[in-house]
Amino acid sequence: MNTIGQLFSVTSFGESHGSHVGCVIDGCPAGLLLDLDQMQTQVNRRKSNQSAFATTRHEEDQLEMMSGLFESTTTGAPICILIKNKDVKSEDYDLLKDVYRPNHADYTYAAKYGIRDHRGGGRSSVRVTAPLVAAGDIAYQLLRHQTAIQTTAYVSQIGTVALPNRNAYSHLDLLDIDANELRCPDEQVARQMKAHIDAVQAEGDTLGGVITCVIKNVPVGLGEPIFSKLHAQLGHAMLSINSVKGFEYGYGFASCAMKGSEYNDAFVMKDGKVHTHTNFSGGIQGGISNGNDIFFHVAFKPISSIRKTQQTIDTKGEDVSLHIEGRHDVCAVPRAVPIVEAYANIILADAILQAKQSTL
Amino acid sequence: MNTIGQLFSVTSFGESHGSHVGCVIDGCPAGLLLDLDQMQTQVNRRKSNQSAFATTRHEEDQLEMMSGLFESTTTGAPICILIKNKDVKSEDYDLLKDVYRPNHADYTYAAKYGIRDHRGGGRSSVRVTAPLVAAGDIAYQLLRHQTAIQTTAYVSQIGTVALPNRNAYSHLDLLDIDANELRCPDEQVARQMKAHIDAVQAEGDTLGGVITCVIKNVPVGLGEPIFSKLHAQLGHAMLSINSVKGFEYGYGFASCAMKGSEYNDAFVMKDGKVHTHTNFSGGIQGGISNGNDIFFHVAFKPISSIRKTQQTIDTKGEDVSLHIEGRHDVCAVPRAVPIVEAYANIILADAILQAKQSTL
Amino acid sequence: MNTIGQLFSVTSFGESHGSHVGCVIDGCPAGLLLDLDQMQTQVNRRKSNQSAFATTRHEEDQLEMMSGLFESTTTGAPICILIKNKDVKSEDYDLLKDVYRPNHADYTYAAKYGIRDHRGGGRSSVRVTAPLVAAGDIAYQLLRHQTAIQTTAYVSQIGTVALPNRNAYSHLDLLDIDANELRCPDEQVARQMKAHIDAVQAEGDTLGGVITCVIKNVPVGLGEPIFSKLHAQLGHAMLSINSVKGFEYGYGFASCAMKGSEYNDAFVMKDGKVHTHTNFSGGIQGGISNGNDIFFHVAFKPISSIRKTQQTIDTKGEDVSLHIEGRHDVCAVPRAVPIVEAYANIILADAILQAKQSTL
Amino acid sequence: MNTIGQLFSVTSFGESHGSHVGCVIDGCPAGLLLDLDQMQTQVNRRKSNQSAFATTRHEEDQLEMMSGLFESTTTGAPICILIKNKDVKSEDYDLLKDVYRPNHADYTYAAKYGIRDHRGGGRSSVRVTAPLVAAGDIAYQLLRHQTAIQTTAYVSQIGTVALPNRNAYSHLDLLDIDANELRCPDEQVARQMKAHIDAVQAEGDTLGGVITCVIKNVPVGLGEPIFSKLHAQLGHAMLSINSVKGFEYGYGFASCAMKGSEYNDAFVMKDGKVHTHTNFSGGIQGGISNGNDIFFHVAFKPISSIRKTQQTIDTKGEDVSLHIEGRHDVCAVPRAVPIVEAYANIILADAILQAKQSTL
Repeated sequence: MNTIGQLFSVTSFGESHGSHVGCVIDGCPAGLLLDLDQMQTQVNRRKSNQSAFATTRHEEDQLEMMSGLFESTTTGAPICILIKNKDVKSEDYDLLKDVYRPNHADYTYAAKYGIRDHRGGGRSSVRVTAPLVAAGDIAYQLLRHQTAIQTTAYVSQIGTVALPNRNAYSHLDLLDIDANELRCPDEQVARQMKAHIDAVQAEGDTLGGVITCVIKNVPVGLGEPIFSKLHAQLGHAMLSINSVKGFEYGYGFASCAMKGSEYNDAFVMKDGKVHTHTNFSGGIQGGISNGNDIFFHVAFKPISSIRKTQQTIDTKGEDVSLHIEGRHDVCAVPRAVPIVEAYANIILADAILQAKQSTL
Repeated sequence: MNTIGQLFSVTSFGESHGSHVGCVIDGCPAGLLLDLDQMQTQVNRRKSNQSAFATTRHEEDQLEMMSGLFESTTTGAPICILIKNKDVKSEDYDLLKDVYRPNHADYTYAAKYGIRDHRGGGRSSVRVTAPLVAAGDIAYQLLRHQTAIQTTAYVSQIGTVALPNRNAYSHLDLLDIDANELRCPDEQVARQMKAHIDAVQAEGDTLGGVITCVIKNVPVGLGEPIFSKLHAQLGHAMLSINSVKGFEYGYGFASCAMKGSEYNDAFVMKDGKVHTHTNFSGGIQGGISNGNDIFFHVAFKPISSIRKTQQTIDTKGEDVSLHIEGRHDVCAVPRAVPIVEAYANIILADAILQAKQSTL
Repeated sequence: MNTIGQLFSVTSFGESHGSHVGCVIDGCPAGLLLDLDQMQTQVNRRKSNQSAFATTRHEEDQLEMMSGLFESTTTGAPICILIKNKDVKSEDYDLLKDVYRPNHADYTYAAKYGIRDHRGGGRSSVRVTAPLVAAGDIAYQLLRHQTAIQTTAYVSQIGTVALPNRNAYSHLDLLDIDANELRCPDEQVARQMKAHIDAVQAEGDTLGGVITCVIKNVPVGLGEPIFSKLHAQLGHAMLSINSVKGFEYGYGFASCAMKGSEYNDAFVMKDGKVHTHTNFSGGIQGGISNGNDIFFHVAFKPISSIRKTQQTIDTKGEDVSLHIEGRHDVCAVPRAVPIVEAYANIILADAILQAKQSTL
Repeated sequence: MNTIGQLFSVTSFGESHGSHVGCVIDGCPAGLLLDLDQMQTQVNRRKSNQSAFATTRHEEDQLEMMSGLFESTTTGAPICILIKNKDVKSEDYDLLKDVYRPNHADYTYAAKYGIRDHRGGGRSSVRVTAPLVAAGDIAYQLLRHQTAIQTTAYVSQIGTVALPNRNAYSHLDLLDIDANELRCPDEQVARQMKAHIDAVQAEGDTLGGVITCVIKNVPVGLGEPIFSKLHAQLGHAMLSINSVKGFEYGYGFASCAMKGSEYNDAFVMKDGKVHTHTNFSGGIQGGISNGNDIFFHVAFKPISSIRKTQQTIDTKGEDVSLHIEGRHDVCAVPRAVPIVEAYANIILADAILQAKQSTL
C-alpha cells in the first residue's frame, strides 16, 4: 500500500505532524557512490523559491541517511532516509478538530480508519513526498550511471494560463526550468501566470495547473506487459501525487480526435537506429519504450484551502461555516515539479532493473 | 508483471495466436455462487453487435472454467479461466513477418525480447483481454454480493464527435448502454458517431475515442494511501488496456482551469449520510472513496491498422511501403466498453477486500 | 498465496478432481529453447516406477503448453502449463463425503472455507504438484543455460531404515538415482527399505521418510538478505510440499550439539577460488551461497490413508469408525524426489535472476 | 527482500554500525492502542539477563516511534520504529578489515555486493533483529486484541544438554520462561546447561542449541494453501533468524520413523469443538491451523566467533591465522527466544489478517 516499485522499491512512512517523514529504498544495487548534496538540492527545490505565492512555513528538510551506505556508497542493503518535521504547535490546528474541510481528506480518512489525526493533513499531506524526492534522486543517479537519460518536468498551465500547445516542446529551453519561480520554460507565459496568481491571491482563492514531463535518451525496451506497461506505471505514480486528477502521455486525449493516418508514427532509420518520424505515441508503444522522447502531462486540481468562507459540516454532521485566516498557498503546481521528476525517475529505475530480466 | 490486484489478484496469460488465452484469479473468497451465463454474456459483449465497423473474425470465446469451483461455487482455490483461440492460418500473417507495422508493438517487443511472434499481435493483442472480462465479471458478482455497486461504462466520444460535456452524465440513461451499437447513451450523438465512422471507413482510415465510466453506490473508504489510492489503481488498470493514452477522474484536466472556490465540493448531510453538494472530485478524496459517484474518462488512440499505404521499415532497417488490404476495424472503442467495466470491477473488488483490513 | 518465486514466479491452480491441474510461470526470460521431452520425463518420474508400493491410478500426465512459447522458445510472456485429470467417478468418494479423515486436510479446509470438495484431496492433493514439476524443469533448463548447477535429490530414510549418516554423501553415486525404485543411492539400504515397506504394507500401515538434496556447482552470491535468504526460501519451498514436517540444511539439528571450533568451516584457496575446507554450513553463509555444495534434508510424515480402522468424527461431530478398503500407497517419499528437485530449481532460478540486481 | 509478511508487512533496515537499526510496519489496522512499555520490555529481553555468558556491549535499545501513531493508537499509516546504535569506534574493527572470518557472512557479502563494510557484521548482524522484536510485539498486541493466542518460546537444548523429549512439553511451566537466564523451563536441565556453557567458555569455544516454541489458543483456519501454508511461513521466518540451520513442526524429523497408525491424530469432539486426541501434527494440517497447539523447533548452530586460533584467508586469498581476544559470547540461543516469539507473532498476525479473506 505504501510501496512503489517492484525491484527499485520505495516504502513511504510518516505524517505531516509526527516527528519525521521518511522512506526506505529496497533494491538499489550495491556500488553506487551517491552525491548527497544533489539529493539535498532536489529536496530543497520542493519548497523554495516561491516566496510570492507560497506559505512561509520554513522547513529545513535536512536529509538524514540512516542505513544502506558505507562511505557514501550503496551496499545493497535498504536505504532509510529521514527528514525531521518542524515542531508545530498542535493547538494551531485545534479549531479544525471537529470540522471536515471541503476537498481535504479529513472525512474519507476518518470514515475509513475510524480515527482522526486533525493536525494538518496527517498522512494525506504532501509533506510525505519530501523524502520521496530524495529517493527519486537516488533513482536518477542510478539511471545516469548507465544511461544518458534526462528527466525534466515543468509547468505548462496555471489556472487559465497555458503554453499554446502542451504537446509541442521542442522549441522550449528545458535546461534551466528554475529560471523563473513558476518553473515555466516560456518567460512570457510565466509572467502571465504570475499575474493570474496575484489576482487570484487577492480574491483569497486558489489555482491548479498542469505539469509536463519530458524524458530524453530513454533506452529501448523499458516496461513490462501487460500490467506493468511503462506508461501505466508512470500514470500510477503520477496519480499518487497529491491533488492529481489526470494523466496522459503522448498526444493523450487529443489523440482521440485524430485519425489513424494522422496519428501513426512512421518508423525511420536515423544514424543506424530505429526512430519514428513523428512522436504522437510519446515514446511508448505496446507499453514498452521505443527510444523516442517520453512525454506526459499531469493535471493538478486547485488547492483546497481557500481564504473564502465555505459551507461544510462538522464531525457530528452539523452545518458549519469555515473561514480560515492568514496567508495561504495559491498554487502548489510549481512546487510539485521536483515531485513529478522524482516519481518518474523511481519508475524508470525500476523499469531499467526489470528490463535486465527480459532476455537470457 | 502480468498480474493486477493485490488481494483479488488476476494473472493473465496467452497470445492471440497460441492455442488459448486465459487468466488465473487468486484471492476470490470461498462461497460465491457464480452465474456463469452472466460471465459468458460479458465476454460476448467484447466482440458482438458491431457488424458495421468491426472485422468479421468470429471467435466463439466459449469460457472454460478449469479450477476453483465446486458445483459453480468458489472454493477459495485459484480460478483458472480459458478461452480457445480460433485456428488461424499462420501464413495469413507471413507478409508481416519482416515488417514493423507503425504504432503496433512489433518493434518494441522485438527489441525488448529479441524474438518475434509475427502472427498478429501475439501477447500485445487485445485478444488477451477476453478472459479478463470474465474475471471482471467474477469481481462484479463479488461486489454485488455485498454492495449495490453499479459499474457502467459508455462511449462519450468517437473521433471528433463527442457528448456535449463528458463530465455531465446525470441526464443520461445508463441502464441500456447496448441499445445502440456505438454504446453511446445519447441516440442522436450515436447517429453522428455512426456517420463519422462510415465516412472514415470509406477513406480507409481509423478512429479513437473516449470511454466514460460511472460507478454508483460505492461504499465509503475504498482505496489505500499513499501508493494504492483508488484512482491511481483505476488509472493503472485503464492505462493497461490496449490503445489507452490517458485517464482522468472527476473533472480531471478541466479542473486545472478552475478556482478552488469553484471546484471545492461542499460537504452536506443527506438522509443521515455525508454527501457533497457537487462532485467535481469524482467520488474520491485523498485516494479514498467518499460515497459519491466515481466517474472517470479513458482516452483511446485511433486503431493502428489502416488501409492506407504507410511508410515504415523492415527488420533489416530498410524502408518499405506497407499496404494492407481487406476489411478492417475502424473503431474499437465501443468494444472496449466491457473491458473498461471489467478492469474497474477488478480494482473495486480488490479495494473492497483491502478495506476489510483498515480497522480492527 | 498460490505463487512461489519473486522474479521466476510460479502460480499454481487446479484440484485433484477438477478437469485440469496447471500453473503459470511469469518471469522466464525470452530466448530459452525448451526441451519439452525432458519436462515430460520429469513429470513422469513423479508417478512411475514404483509399482510395488504405489497405487495404480494411472494418470497420463501429458503436458499441454498453452502460452509463452514460439517454436518451443520462450518469448518472455507467461507460460501456462496444463495437465488433464483422468476422469474419476465422483461416487467413488461419496462414502467420504461426511467424514473427516484423520491427518488429511478435510477438516481444516472445511473449517476455513465453509465449503467442502470431498472428491479426494481437492486442492490439498499432491496431484497439484504435477505441473509444478514441469515448471521446475523449465527453471532447471534456465539454470543450466548459464551455470553448471546440478540438483540431485534422493531418499535417505524410509521409516526406520536410513543411510548411516545423512550428512555424508560424497561417497554416494548421485548420477543414477532412479536405478532402484526407492531412489536411494545405496543399493543395500534400498533393499532394506523395500523389505520394510513390504512388511508395513502387509499390516495395512504406511511410512514416511527423508529426502536429501545436493546441489553442486552453485554460483557464489545467490540469496537475498534478510528475508529472502537462500536457505529460508528453500525451506519455504520444501515446507510447501505435501506431508513435509521439517527442513534442515548443512548439519542442521546436528549442528546444535557441536562446538564452534568443530563446526566452523575454515576458508581456503583452491584453484584460485575461495572454498571452505569442510562444509558443515551446507554451502550457505549469511543466507548467501558460498560456492560449496548446498545440501539439505526434508522430513516427510507417513501417508495419512491407512487400511487399518481408525476412529474419527463426521461433519456433524459424531464419532465414526473409518475403514478404507483396496490397495493403498505405503510410502510416497520416492515419488516426492522429483518434486523436491523441482521446487529447489524454482528457488535457484529465482535467486539467480535476483542476483543480477545485486550490483551495478 | 527485506520484507516479511503480506498484509502485516514488516520491512527491515539498518546495519550494526550505522546510526540506527529500524523497521517499517505496513498493514497494521487502525485503532489499536499500543502498550509501548510492553514493546520496550520485549526488546530489552533480547539483550538482558545473561551476564554470565554474553558480551558486555550494553546497548540501550530505546525504541523511537517515528510514525503511524496518534496518541499511542495506530492510525492505519505505516509505523516506523528506530533504535539508535551505540557509537562504536570503527578502529576496533580495523584488524578484521582484510580477513574473512570463518562462518561469518564476510566472504559471501563481499562476493555478492563487491563492497565490504567490515565494521562488525554490518547488515548480517543479529543487531538488525532488535526493532523486529518490537514489531513482533505489535503483532502480538494485535493478535491478543482478537484472540487468546499465547506464544511462548524457550530453550530446549544447549550444546549436548537437552530436555529429555523436546516434543513433550505439557508438563513444563511455560508461564515464566525468564525465571532462569537460560530460558529453559526445567530448572535442573538449566543448571546442566549453565555448567556446559561455563566449561566451554573456559575453552574459548562456543555452543548452539534448540529453541522450542508453543502457541496456544490458535484459531482454526490460519494459513493459506499452497505456498503460504502456515508452517511454511513460520519456517521461512525462523530460517531468517541469524544462525538458524533447521526447522521442524509437530513431530518433525521424528515423524519419519513412525507408522501412519502411530502418527495419525484421531479427531474427537471436546466441549462441542473439534479436537484431535493426539497432536503429532503440531496443530497444522494441510497448511492450515486446526485449533490445537502449534509447536515447532528451531536449530541454532554454535556462535562463529571463538577465542581459539583459526585458519582462514584474507581478502587477497592469503592464508592467515585469526585470533580474537577479549570476552566473547558463548551461546546466543537464550537471547534468541524473544526473536523467535516475535517472528512467530508477525506470521500469525499476517495469517489472521489473511484469514479474513477466506470467505465472503
